[in-house]
Amino acid sequence: MPAVKPENIPPLDPTAAAPFYRQIYDRFRDAIASGMLKPGDRIPSARALTKELGLARGTIETAYSLLAAEGYIQAHGQAGTVVSPNLTPRMSIASLTPQPELLRKDAVSFRPDSILPFQMGLPALDAFPRKIWARLGARCARAMQPSDMIHPPVYGLPSLRTEIARYLQVSRGINCSPSQVFVTSGYRQTMEWIGHALLKAGDRVWLEDPGYPPTREIFEYMHIEGVSVPVDGEGMVVSDAVKLAPRARAALVTPAHQSPLCMSLSLTRRLALLDWAARNKAWIIEDDYDGEYRYVSRPLPALKSLDRDGRALYAGTFSKVLFPGMRLAYLVVPEAQVERFERVTESLSAGSPGLTQTIVAAFIAEGHFARHIQRMRKLYAERRAATAAGLESVLGKYVRTDSQPGGMHLILRLRGNRSDRRLAASMREQGLYAEALTNWTTRGDGASALLLNFTNIDSRHTAENFGRRILRLM
Amino acid sequence: MPAVKPENIPPLDPTAAAPFYRQIYDRFRDAIASGMLKPGDRIPSARALTKELGLARGTIETAYSLLAAEGYIQAHGQAGTVVSPNLTPRMSIASLTPQPELLRKDAVSFRPDSILPFQMGLPALDAFPRKIWARLGARCARAMQPSDMIHPPVYGLPSLRTEIARYLQVSRGINCSPSQVFVTSGYRQTMEWIGHALLKAGDRVWLEDPGYPPTREIFEYMHIEGVSVPVDGEGMVVSDAVKLAPRARAALVTPAHQSPLCMSLSLTRRLALLDWAARNKAWIIEDDYDGEYRYVSRPLPALKSLDRDGRALYAGTFSKVLFPGMRLAYLVVPEAQVERFERVTESLSAGSPGLTQTIVAAFIAEGHFARHIQRMRKLYAERRAATAAGLESVLGKYVRTDSQPGGMHLILRLRGNRSDRRLAASMREQGLYAEALTNWTTRGDGASALLLNFTNIDSRHTAENFGRRILRLM
Repeated sequence: MPAVKPENIPPLDPTAAAPFYRQIYDRFRDAIASGMLKPGDRIPSARALTKELGLARGTIETAYSLLAAEGYIQAHGQAGTVVSPNLTPRMSIASLTPQPELLRKDAVSFRPDSILPFQMGLPALDAFPRKIWARLGARCARAMQPSDMIHPPVYGLPSLRTEIARYLQVSRGINCSPSQVFVTSGYRQTMEWIGHALLKAGDRVWLEDPGYPPTREIFEYMHIEGVSVPVDGEGMVVSDAVKLAPRARAALVTPAHQSPLCMSLSLTRRLALLDWAARNKAWIIEDDYDGEYRYVSRPLPALKSLDRDGRALYAGTFSKVLFPGMRLAYLVVPEAQVERFERVTESLSAGSPGLTQTIVAAFIAEGHFARHIQRMRKLYAERRAATAAGLESVLGKYVRTDSQPGGMHLILRLRGNRSDRRLAASMREQGLYAEALTNWTTRGDGASALLLNFTNIDSRHTAENFGRRILRLM
Repeated sequence: MPAVKPENIPPLDPTAAAPFYRQIYDRFRDAIASGMLKPGDRIPSARALTKELGLARGTIETAYSLLAAEGYIQAHGQAGTVVSPNLTPRMSIASLTPQPELLRKDAVSFRPDSILPFQMGLPALDAFPRKIWARLGARCARAMQPSDMIHPPVYGLPSLRTEIARYLQVSRGINCSPSQVFVTSGYRQTMEWIGHALLKAGDRVWLEDPGYPPTREIFEYMHIEGVSVPVDGEGMVVSDAVKLAPRARAALVTPAHQSPLCMSLSLTRRLALLDWAARNKAWIIEDDYDGEYRYVSRPLPALKSLDRDGRALYAGTFSKVLFPGMRLAYLVVPEAQVERFERVTESLSAGSPGLTQTIVAAFIAEGHFARHIQRMRKLYAERRAATAAGLESVLGKYVRTDSQPGGMHLILRLRGNRSDRRLAASMREQGLYAEALTNWTTRGDGASALLLNFTNIDSRHTAENFGRRILRLM
């Protein structure tokens, strides 16, 4: 096990667009990909490398924690840090090849494609049952028949549609048949199908403000006008919405945990929305991206479970409860709209890859899905508490954490006049991910706060360490 | 091994939309899915069932050949026909569950989702190296790292982009860097990205007439006007196109084997197109869906390989050389357009599933891809000859087979005034797939011919059998 000497690390480029931690990360990744570093090889300690390169210790630590999070290196106590002994070089080449496109994304990005501390939208990557997944994946790949090789059914594999319908019945209180379930490749496709089936150019749609920014973009792209509706402690203020745009054709809401403020839409508001939709023959689009992740009590039933008039559409995704890389989401439509959605799907889609769908169907059917969600609910409650405690103990003078019943991120309110955008930008430069709440509002104003995903923060100690790095930027 | 008695087959429904063969097929599939029929169980002989049900022998044979093609049953010589002993019931449930949506597609469909004899667009499903694929699939699933679980890079996995660029260089004469390669989920997504990056509503595009009907639909959907350009023995008549719409912004061509007439675009025409595009700053979209499958000589280099001015885009797909169920295609753009396509991709896509991309990248990198294409070129040449000979020997009085250098289907010209549409419709009723050439023309007129895919016809004998069934419909 030859050690790599710190002085053998190629020099860093201070003029490059990529920050130093990223350059260090890339160099190690390249060295492993090219075979220069082999599984089991020792790499310099963070301390030695800090000294050699004359950089801040935090910079090196960020690079190393990123490499460790992605499985390239492992700390071996006294023996130092080594390249992971069980790396299978041939097959990991995909993830090991340098990805120059990652470097360009230093601006605000709502679809991050690298792993940074506090990165939004990611489940706990270390806690996913990869062995079970791999076993099912191997089995599904071996079981592939000629009939699985043709175009997959455009509405989704029947087995997966059935499993989703069963799961929704048990966990989210939604009564639907498999034929009401449409499998999509993600949130964007779900919204596009809704747009094409039920809306037309020039229509207006109520959107929560603040709200998930890509939604507005997707509707704009379809020439549908988003109407910004304020949100208070009970979620979307429906009475304001009615005043702003009584003739809107649809309302998009995140009832379980408002995105990004995490409060639940109250029962009164749910009923008001359903009433409005029924009277106006309008549609409610329920985006239930993380409804399972509620920590103070049992998850609330979906709004869709109260829908007596067939006005609500339910959008779910596997990105948060499994992982985003699989690109699978789904949409439940009212029974009377099934044919319309079948027509849209037939003309817009060629189906999602069969293999992934088969794996997910087996994962649900064999009970791994329900167990995983249970485990994550517990783990996230712990990580949420640990992250909040760790950050508050270090940053308490400058911030206040919102106390919310669920979700996958913390809301760190900034005291005084601190700009959340400026702080988020500085954090990005230091290899820490953060999103500024004001970027999620239509006018770019309102209260200053950071949105910090906690699902990948493994302890209070880690949170404190990151908190200290944020403190230096205050 | 208990045998199922013919009288135990549930009665068929003469009023159902599904033809008898399909009802029989469904009953066996359901019985296997529900466990009523187990691996190794004997099923009635086609003769016994024909007698029992009082139907035509061909009807039963179609159902059985469909069940056999999909791996559910196997002929065991003297021992009769049995449910495949190595069916893994748990995992095949996806393909075993009844798929009601299949039954509705009796009309013209250009994206078939069942397997029928002569079905267009399918590679030889029996000849795909499923074991190798399964081994790679298992390995890739096991090698999944946390970094593979986040959103895949929207342009495609770097390893796959690299492998595609290498393959195109060697096999299609195209010089491009991996950054010019964009991985898509299929032909439709490829065309949508081109539309958004380079065209705008109201633009005109030259399309071949006859041509692949969905293309027109996709452009219409983007409010881009297709201009029908006639095709002769040298492919698209460029001089006619210039007269019809000199200011068109793009031309979509299938230079290797015109879709559906299979002639190659001549060198003169290729150069004329490139010249027109350069002068008018217009774009050439080269749809090379089956360029590898040429039987009379080596495959021709792609038109893109002659593109000196950066006006040609190259659209490739894995649907024909591997299989359509994986939903992967790609697009090569001129170097100067890379940034534009990166922006479009970032706003329209969330990436294709990582697992499938990793498997394909490994399949290419380890040489299986090149070997598979070589084997298929040889096999398709044989099946093409056998199918043509078999059909001509039976139907020679009524048809004439076009002799073309490549492609995956035969063109059966109908003599006299026979309507290709009527014949194709009757064939569908009998469980035989056919497409009518006149459905591929803009005006629905022109020469009457059937398009028959030969890649899944395993012998002259099989072709003769099917030929006899077509003969009865003449």
